[in-house]
Amino acid sequence: MSHHTELLSRLHDRSAVIGIVGLGYVGLPLAIRFAEVGYRVLGFDIAEDKVAKLNRGESLIEHIPHAAVQAARDAGFEATTDFGRTPQADALILCVPTPLNKYREPDLSFVINTVESLIPHMREGQVMSLESTTYPGTTDEELGPRLETRGLVIGETTFLVYSPEREDPGNANFTTHTIPKVCGGATPACLEVGMALYGQVIDRVVPVSSTRAAELTKLLENIHRAVNIGLVNEMKIVADRMDIDIHEVIAAAATKPFGFVAYQPGPGLGGHCIPIDPFYLTWKAREYGVHTRFIELAGEINSAMPDYVIGKLSGAMNDRQKSIKGSRVLVLGIAYKKNVDDMRESPSVILMEKLRDLGAHVDYSDPHIPTFPPMREHKFDLDSVPLTSDSLKSYDCVLLATDHDRFDYDLIRENAVLIVDSRGKLAAGKDVVKA
Amino acid sequence: MSHHTELLSRLHDRSAVIGIVGLGYVGLPLAIRFAEVGYRVLGFDIAEDKVAKLNRGESLIEHIPHAAVQAARDAGFEATTDFGRTPQADALILCVPTPLNKYREPDLSFVINTVESLIPHMREGQVMSLESTTYPGTTDEELGPRLETRGLVIGETTFLVYSPEREDPGNANFTTHTIPKVCGGATPACLEVGMALYGQVIDRVVPVSSTRAAELTKLLENIHRAVNIGLVNEMKIVADRMDIDIHEVIAAAATKPFGFVAYQPGPGLGGHCIPIDPFYLTWKAREYGVHTRFIELAGEINSAMPDYVIGKLSGAMNDRQKSIKGSRVLVLGIAYKKNVDDMRESPSVILMEKLRDLGAHVDYSDPHIPTFPPMREHKFDLDSVPLTSDSLKSYDCVLLATDHDRFDYDLIRENAVLIVDSRGKLAAGKDVVKA
Repeated sequence: MSHHTELLSRLHDRSAVIGIVGLGYVGLPLAIRFAEVGYRVLGFDIAEDKVAKLNRGESLIEHIPHAAVQAARDAGFEATTDFGRTPQADALILCVPTPLNKYREPDLSFVINTVESLIPHMREGQVMSLESTTYPGTTDEELGPRLETRGLVIGETTFLVYSPEREDPGNANFTTHTIPKVCGGATPACLEVGMALYGQVIDRVVPVSSTRAAELTKLLENIHRAVNIGLVNEMKIVADRMDIDIHEVIAAAATKPFGFVAYQPGPGLGGHCIPIDPFYLTWKAREYGVHTRFIELAGEINSAMPDYVIGKLSGAMNDRQKSIKGSRVLVLGIAYKKNVDDMRESPSVILMEKLRDLGAHVDYSDPHIPTFPPMREHKFDLDSVPLTSDSLKSYDCVLLATDHDRFDYDLIRENAVLIVDSRGKLAAGKDVVKA
Repeated sequence: MSHHTELLSRLHDRSAVIGIVGLGYVGLPLAIRFAEVGYRVLGFDIAEDKVAKLNRGESLIEHIPHAAVQAARDAGFEATTDFGRTPQADALILCVPTPLNKYREPDLSFVINTVESLIPHMREGQVMSLESTTYPGTTDEELGPRLETRGLVIGETTFLVYSPEREDPGNANFTTHTIPKVCGGATPACLEVGMALYGQVIDRVVPVSSTRAAELTKLLENIHRAVNIGLVNEMKIVADRMDIDIHEVIAAAATKPFGFVAYQPGPGLGGHCIPIDPFYLTWKAREYGVHTRFIELAGEINSAMPDYVIGKLSGAMNDRQKSIKGSRVLVLGIAYKKNVDDMRESPSVILMEKLRDLGAHVDYSDPHIPTFPPMREHKFDLDSVPLTSDSLKSYDCVLLATDHDRFDYDLIRENAVLIVDSRGKLAAGKDVVKA
């Protein structure tokens, strides 16, 4: 029996062992899903503490309950830091971060380091699937040749696919298996294996003609978001000058039942995807001598939004004959989006730093984040301030940065001396300034 | 009884006479709708021939059947060129064009001329509603003061609203009354009258706080489209360089059930709205010292698409050792979008001109447009070429510009020597070049 036939058979009858490398926002839900439908799942991660927690049946992510991890453990999920166990897995699914470096260039080090940790241990008859968002060509140009150095023949003795993750933490309407999944293979045989791998756990797997097409698909999704958010952020600035409430306009436009989709302006872009992914294409496009001007413009406008918010806050304080320096400012919401505990790339942190640099005494309140966590590039030694009428009254200004549903907006409204609202959450009023 | 109360009462009991000024793509369907629900409708237009046709029960627009006009006539719709009849109408709804001039500045001459034709005849107790797309402030700054010169008091003896049209010719899912309609008033009393005016004929009328908010709402809808089309056009160019089919990528991205909406690239923007409307905001924004960079970028990229298509066509001809000069080129589809007969701002015409300028012998085929109509800035003395195997074979190149459903794509595919496809309609092949 060929490697191809044997692997397909093991995937179809669920006797295959699924290796998932990187047990974060993407890898963990996927591991749980594979375990749920009956596969043995081996989760690889380099973080000892994370692996230990998972093996105790504890979750690491707010929206994934401990019980889900425990159930996966019971069903055959095990976490390990030992990459020597690579041969035990039939599938190796890479769910590692793809950030940008300081110069806004792709940082593939997590992907490359992971692949190079796996390769010495790989055997014939395995499939490798990359899920990390990246530029078109990554799978073909970076993963393929590395597999070949091991003597593996892609499409014959090993199989290579790219299938981008579409996790959306906090989305109440969709979960891992109900979100259709795109898959491209390095060869037709690879694609067939990829479809078999995901077809058992995802309700709908969408095949595309190449790994490059799959890579660009994921980028296009996030470019679409970054550009549309950039557009409404620019429109917010224009509308504000014309003394028109952009939120009212967006809500009215959204009543058009075709041809328009509402995106909401805010204090800037956040999260691990939207502010970062588009620039993977920008970088790669240069190799081809083409430009991605919408991406650049969206990046420029979105990254200028924190300054716009600070300008509005500063103007509102000035109207009240106060300086930012020496004032007490409370930032509401430091997660990058509502109702989650994820702070990656959160514009709230940028706002807090800018306020601190201007001399404000800065505090924050976020029901999802009790203590300001250690971050690579940001440091605040703070705990979340509980919202009470007294605590709210004690600040010269309250800045609504992330509009969690758990906030008591009536309480905020009644007690804050001045509210700067960057989310269009509160009706206009003399102590509410839209930003 | 006040003018306000009396007008409301006449609108509610449908005894009011509805005057509609401008009987084109917007005004005619609206006139038919008002007649349908039992109002007497007086349609004003300056074109004698149009008025005569309508009064004979003939339609002027492909997608509006003669029977609909005849039924409206029977129900009490009458067209006239006599603006002296203005006092007979309780409502004056302005549905006139708002194009751009050669310098891409708003050309409000149709609106202003219409208003100035009406004003000498206006009486107390009328409502004027502007439906034409325009920049925020038009109603307040251009219409309001003109009404006041007549001695009318806005909100007391006359009423002024802005309610943008949302007609979408060729849309099979929506018709005039099922498309929600936004309405803003110059005063609260004006808004109340506007809601009564449209509330009888439109299933859902959406009030907003000002005419400016309503004006920006319409612009935002079309800016959204122009920018999203610009984005996919830029992505088409990038994907093409990377040898990826953008249409495959868009279709794959569209399987994401949230956060992404598919827009299709093409040979450039067309129609009366999308290429034009956004620049109304650009122009007005300058007054406030702000820029609309997404609009500018979309305009730049979208208006460069015909050159991109010509470049692809030229490259394909060159591969076949042919020049454009002296070749026979057939352009398929000259309407600006599929399945309509509307040629306003159609990129197909630009393509035809560019090909003619390069020395090609250019013909066209369009099942919706039997003869190339007289246009202000374009002239072709041509009839639509019927598509047969012989006619198709007689061209060196067939350029698919507008992908009408009525085209027989199998016939085209089998017989055309070379097809340049600017719509992603045909599967790739040796005689199909994506453009």
